[in-house]
Amino acid sequence: MLKEMFENLRASAPLVHNITNYVTVNDCANILLACGASPIMADDEREAAEITELCGALNINIGTLNSRTIPAMFAAGERAAACGKPALLDPVGAGASKLRTDTAIALLGKVKFTVIRGNISEIRTLARGCGTTKGVDADAAERVSEDNLAESAKFAMEFARSANAIIVMTGAIDIAADEERAFAIRNGAPMMSRITGAGCMLSAMTAAYLAANRDNPLEATVTSVCAMGLCGERAAARLGTNDGNSTFRNYLIDEIYNLDGETLERGARYEILR
Amino acid sequence: MLKEMFENLRASAPLVHNITNYVTVNDCANILLACGASPIMADDEREAAEITELCGALNINIGTLNSRTIPAMFAAGERAAACGKPALLDPVGAGASKLRTDTAIALLGKVKFTVIRGNISEIRTLARGCGTTKGVDADAAERVSEDNLAESAKFAMEFARSANAIIVMTGAIDIAADEERAFAIRNGAPMMSRITGAGCMLSAMTAAYLAANRDNPLEATVTSVCAMGLCGERAAARLGTNDGNSTFRNYLIDEIYNLDGETLERGARYEILR
Amino acid sequence: MLKEMFENLRASAPLVHNITNYVTVNDCANILLACGASPIMADDEREAAEITELCGALNINIGTLNSRTIPAMFAAGERAAACGKPALLDPVGAGASKLRTDTAIALLGKVKFTVIRGNISEIRTLARGCGTTKGVDADAAERVSEDNLAESAKFAMEFARSANAIIVMTGAIDIAADEERAFAIRNGAPMMSRITGAGCMLSAMTAAYLAANRDNPLEATVTSVCAMGLCGERAAARLGTNDGNSTFRNYLIDEIYNLDGETLERGARYEILR
Repeated sequence: MLKEMFENLRASAPLVHNITNYVTVNDCANILLACGASPIMADDEREAAEITELCGALNINIGTLNSRTIPAMFAAGERAAACGKPALLDPVGAGASKLRTDTAIALLGKVKFTVIRGNISEIRTLARGCGTTKGVDADAAERVSEDNLAESAKFAMEFARSANAIIVMTGAIDIAADEERAFAIRNGAPMMSRITGAGCMLSAMTAAYLAANRDNPLEATVTSVCAMGLCGERAAARLGTNDGNSTFRNYLIDEIYNLDGETLERGARYEILR
Repeated sequence: MLKEMFENLRASAPLVHNITNYVTVNDCANILLACGASPIMADDEREAAEITELCGALNINIGTLNSRTIPAMFAAGERAAACGKPALLDPVGAGASKLRTDTAIALLGKVKFTVIRGNISEIRTLARGCGTTKGVDADAAERVSEDNLAESAKFAMEFARSANAIIVMTGAIDIAADEERAFAIRNGAPMMSRITGAGCMLSAMTAAYLAANRDNPLEATVTSVCAMGLCGERAAARLGTNDGNSTFRNYLIDEIYNLDGETLERGARYEILR
Repeated sequence: MLKEMFENLRASAPLVHNITNYVTVNDCANILLACGASPIMADDEREAAEITELCGALNINIGTLNSRTIPAMFAAGERAAACGKPALLDPVGAGASKLRTDTAIALLGKVKFTVIRGNISEIRTLARGCGTTKGVDADAAERVSEDNLAESAKFAMEFARSANAIIVMTGAIDIAADEERAFAIRNGAPMMSRITGAGCMLSAMTAAYLAANRDNPLEATVTSVCAMGLCGERAAARLGTNDGNSTFRNYLIDEIYNLDGETLERGARYEILR
């Protein structure tokens, strides 16, 4: 399954429209190029919808959202829906401020998202319609673990049903679910939480996978999550004594660049929970 | 020729004002430092013209342009003209949206640019006054090749005449032309299209070359294009088995940092076409 | 002293709110993660104060300030003061434009800063209430040297008294002073001025040190300055023949990531001047 999704992405080289934060935007652009896609960033309301039309998918990331870019998110998101193009929402920091929570929830009401990807705190905030998180990191108390895996999968499937979107909650164990199936993905490395942008990059790359695999959005999403986690493992294994998080970031993008379908198929560690 | 242009840049260490996109801005700043210049970024209308006055050159890049930064582009561009300072336009994504095309064309009408640098699709869009490109990459059908080299050079020279600016079209083969002469530059590496920002970095560095070589803008431009292409080759040669596009980006900037005039003179591959 | 400050930071892992420029923001986020803190960036007026409340410290950097982000700086700064949280001002480019000078001075009037960190030209601009600098770099004529060290320390202490804040002036020799004591720090490497963001990263990390060492702000600040300088030395020592400023940037962040309290205590070179 994963190999096919991967090769569809390499073969189709989709253009992905990103309305995203200025913190990790360069990494998002380079990971899109690394995985075989092309990035375009455009966040002015006067061009956002037009750019979305040119693209194979739209990635909306609300980190560093502001009064100028929020209308562009709605314009692009509504155009994606109108054109039947996949759109992904990354609700960075939902729960950390009223502006972020309200914007994410308003986007859910106006835009048909194919995938919503966040950490467990952000996803729970959206599911509850409100909530509190510690900044942009997940609350320890809410983390997905072996102990609460079945319960977490059930929660993701229920929210997938009510949001009419695939839900991805990333952490030490990742969960990807639609209303009928839930996958647990166990790839990844602790170092991924010591760089900025691992989540943003995953969202951008997942949008590319969705563009290249229109008929299999859940499989495409699981493939993207496995690819990022596996490349995180491989990048971590490559680190030498003096290397730290900056070198890890480079190696992570490099590994996505050098990944092939066989390696991905062999290294992916996922299971269907229900 | 190239060695002299190179050494003028190292000796004068010009300050370059950049109004540029937030995707590749960090790379633009680091490549300016690598080549011996100093970067300053300022995109608020209230300070843009004042900052341009402090600087040796102005680099306007319309990627992620928006309603707030567009007036700053005009203010800075007009002040550069008024002070007789070289200005460069990088029309990122011209043709991809009406906003980008219109803004680029309006800038051409109001600002005296010394150089306009883009891929062939962007340049053709400006020359036609309208057009369509695939996002921020060049259309394959329009690429400069050995087959259409003479025709491409003629086009560049004609547009140079009508725009009253040096035209640079970058791709597998690069063309730099004013209304009297056209150069083809064959340095470069395919890997340069697998990172974000190779074009943006070239534009920023070219502005620095223009600042340091006021009497020879075409030679300065050709030198900058050769330097970037040669350093792309050298960075690609340095890549190991596990390296990918992120490491390539670092090596490319490193090579610009370590370049010297002799190496540049020896490695540059350019010819005068007419 | 340094080891304790360092370990307090690692143990408390504070969240740091950054309103900062889009040039070096990614490096600021990664250095915060490297030193053991967590970054959050939020620059919209509607959420800035709320985000500050969640955080252990606030870092305001006026590089690429604009009409939209300036009100957020005031809102966040005032909230930090109201909550008794440490705030740091990095007056990037103060003196280079009226907008930057006026904004920095207005912030000083409205916000209680714990630390103000800039190069000597920026600090002198603030102290004079006006002035001229060459872009974002320090004027050579004003640099702190062995010859003017006592005088520079006196100036810093006087400005510390009038600004009611710790003053940090960074350069080949760094000075950190409150109204009663001045430290000179001799760690560092020339390469640090060949990357963009060394100063911005130091400001961000210093905010993290302040958050983790609330009762010892001057010691915390000196520790941060020593750590950055020492890691600059270590990163420079790690550079190979073909490495340049881009690799240096990665190594610098890596060194902060791998630093430990013993190494810092042993490698720090500082003295109390008065």
